[in-house]
Amino acid sequence: MLQRPPAEPGMREEEVDTPALILDLDAFEANLDAMAAFLAPTGTKLRAHAKTHKSPVVALQQMRRGAVGQCVQKVAEAEILAWGGVPDILVSNEVVSPRKLARLAALSTISKVALCADDAAGVALIEQAAEAAGRRMTVLVEIDVGAGRCGVPPGPEAVALAQRIAGSPHLVFGGLQAYHGRAQHIRSPEGRAEAIGSAVEQTRRTVEQLRQQGLDCAIVGGAGTGTFRHEATSGVFTEIQAGSYAFMDADYAANEDAPPFRHALFLLSQVMSTPKPALAVLDAGHKAAPTDSGFPRVWQRPGLRYAGASDEHGNLVVEGGQRPDLGEKLRLVPAHCDPTIDRYDWFVGVRNGRVECLWPIAARGAMA
Amino acid sequence: MLQRPPAEPGMREEEVDTPALILDLDAFEANLDAMAAFLAPTGTKLRAHAKTHKSPVVALQQMRRGAVGQCVQKVAEAEILAWGGVPDILVSNEVVSPRKLARLAALSTISKVALCADDAAGVALIEQAAEAAGRRMTVLVEIDVGAGRCGVPPGPEAVALAQRIAGSPHLVFGGLQAYHGRAQHIRSPEGRAEAIGSAVEQTRRTVEQLRQQGLDCAIVGGAGTGTFRHEATSGVFTEIQAGSYAFMDADYAANEDAPPFRHALFLLSQVMSTPKPALAVLDAGHKAAPTDSGFPRVWQRPGLRYAGASDEHGNLVVEGGQRPDLGEKLRLVPAHCDPTIDRYDWFVGVRNGRVECLWPIAARGAMA
Repeated sequence: MLQRPPAEPGMREEEVDTPALILDLDAFEANLDAMAAFLAPTGTKLRAHAKTHKSPVVALQQMRRGAVGQCVQKVAEAEILAWGGVPDILVSNEVVSPRKLARLAALSTISKVALCADDAAGVALIEQAAEAAGRRMTVLVEIDVGAGRCGVPPGPEAVALAQRIAGSPHLVFGGLQAYHGRAQHIRSPEGRAEAIGSAVEQTRRTVEQLRQQGLDCAIVGGAGTGTFRHEATSGVFTEIQAGSYAFMDADYAANEDAPPFRHALFLLSQVMSTPKPALAVLDAGHKAAPTDSGFPRVWQRPGLRYAGASDEHGNLVVEGGQRPDLGEKLRLVPAHCDPTIDRYDWFVGVRNGRVECLWPIAARGAMA
Repeated sequence: MLQRPPAEPGMREEEVDTPALILDLDAFEANLDAMAAFLAPTGTKLRAHAKTHKSPVVALQQMRRGAVGQCVQKVAEAEILAWGGVPDILVSNEVVSPRKLARLAALSTISKVALCADDAAGVALIEQAAEAAGRRMTVLVEIDVGAGRCGVPPGPEAVALAQRIAGSPHLVFGGLQAYHGRAQHIRSPEGRAEAIGSAVEQTRRTVEQLRQQGLDCAIVGGAGTGTFRHEATSGVFTEIQAGSYAFMDADYAANEDAPPFRHALFLLSQVMSTPKPALAVLDAGHKAAPTDSGFPRVWQRPGLRYAGASDEHGNLVVEGGQRPDLGEKLRLVPAHCDPTIDRYDWFVGVRNGRVECLWPIAARGAMA
């Protein structure tokens, strides 16, 4: 359900109710500009991933800086973006539910919509939905270039599935989805370069085999914030699907040669108890800061470590620094921006220490 | 933001859009009845914890079966419960934000409201808020009986803080909050009994020392689903604060001599990809099923194990069982019900295989 915003425009950051999701607007805008500047000379386009930001407001800012559209993982996310004015959306994921496919076909009357497939049976379901809706739907083939999740193997199996799509009366073959999720979080630059080098070669070979069959790829999409520099300069990928770059988080910052973006996303949390000399308890536990990628980091307060979370409490251990006072508010850097943003209804946009805007996270919880 | 319900009343469960939070209404009602039946002869009351269910609908069903009120952890949860018709609410937690204390004082005009303190400075902040609102507020002293989180030590420090509360013109001393969170998840019955035995003795001694100072405890509250049988029969605790008992989850089911409740809460998830003979990919990742207490379990499908989660995908490995088909929908048992429920906007209430009701999870995301 919709929760009230934790702040009012004009308020000082330290007055914001906690826990709150703070967006440093200067850093956020610098990150959007930096990605646009990097991609411009490569000719590779940005189709930013809305699974991270969950907000048409952010999507439209990315598109004003040259993004050709948005990626989503869920039909419900696609609906909220399209209804929010996003004209070009790729569901970078398989959809096999007839109810969801019918919703996507209906959505294609107001926005350009494409989705992925990795199974002939899935292609048949999409064809049925398109025929029932009297629409033509664009379908990309997802290939597994190392993530070991969804996708058909690159090469002949991908070509066969593309031919099945192209041969379906109500479907258009749209290209390849080739995202190597695991590679984003390989710590060493060499490791990431090697993983993506292999993904690029598998994708290049598949694109050529498709071309030999007369099937051109309008989109060859993939990449994330950890590896986009490789895909963007590969000469094979046409679109980059990074999402975290706009915000950054502790996990991406831990990559050696971390991506060239600033921390723009913070959790504002308050010290609610100081029961021991070396312990301060924060009002942000794992409901406020999901722990799938570890605990959040304390921002610019050396000697303080977020060392444990329960549902609504975070244990801050004092390791040499000064224990914060009861009631003090601290910024935390989320370990993983995607699930963290998806916990909140509002971005509290802050500039020069004051709340400038409250952006609704309209696709928060849009899972179906 | 509010997401549309994933189902329509009358629909068969297998038609529900996924991922969805399914509530088995027969099991849920049996759990509420079982707790009421257990507590009746003990004379100990239930003040169920709404941090688990996040819903006035569930709260009112618990109260119809004898619960004296509800616990919450957050002021925003208290507001949503009070506005939903819950007449008696304990914030079983410290609140030190003047803005939040002002909201709580205002709320006390429509519901009976109490909160906890573990610091003299915190008591002073509550007194200021009560005075500013022209209200009298009830404050419990939280004591640390082994959880190692918030709370003052039992004994003299607790008595001193209670005297400070009782001596504040706009405050009423309400009793003790003595919750041993860690003990809920000790696997062995002996270990839980030992931990709670110690908590009970520390609480009993503190209650007696307070009485010697002329301070009676209207409420001595604590306990969770893992240990409530001990506190309820202790002769010391007056109120039990269990929440998970209504739903159960994989973590509580893993306790030896598990609590006597049925699994009532399930995640319905769909197989969206079957890329390998021994792998099925579900449409429920860690955004749908938080992993703070591990991965969800597959319900009544031997040989299938939920073995890995990314943001929107769950990897189901086939270990001897039959791989489910593309598009098949499976029930998962959440590892931890509290953060899982807090990810969803709707309980999809199911009875005899059909959707009977859609209950709004109105306090979903109510963190401030």
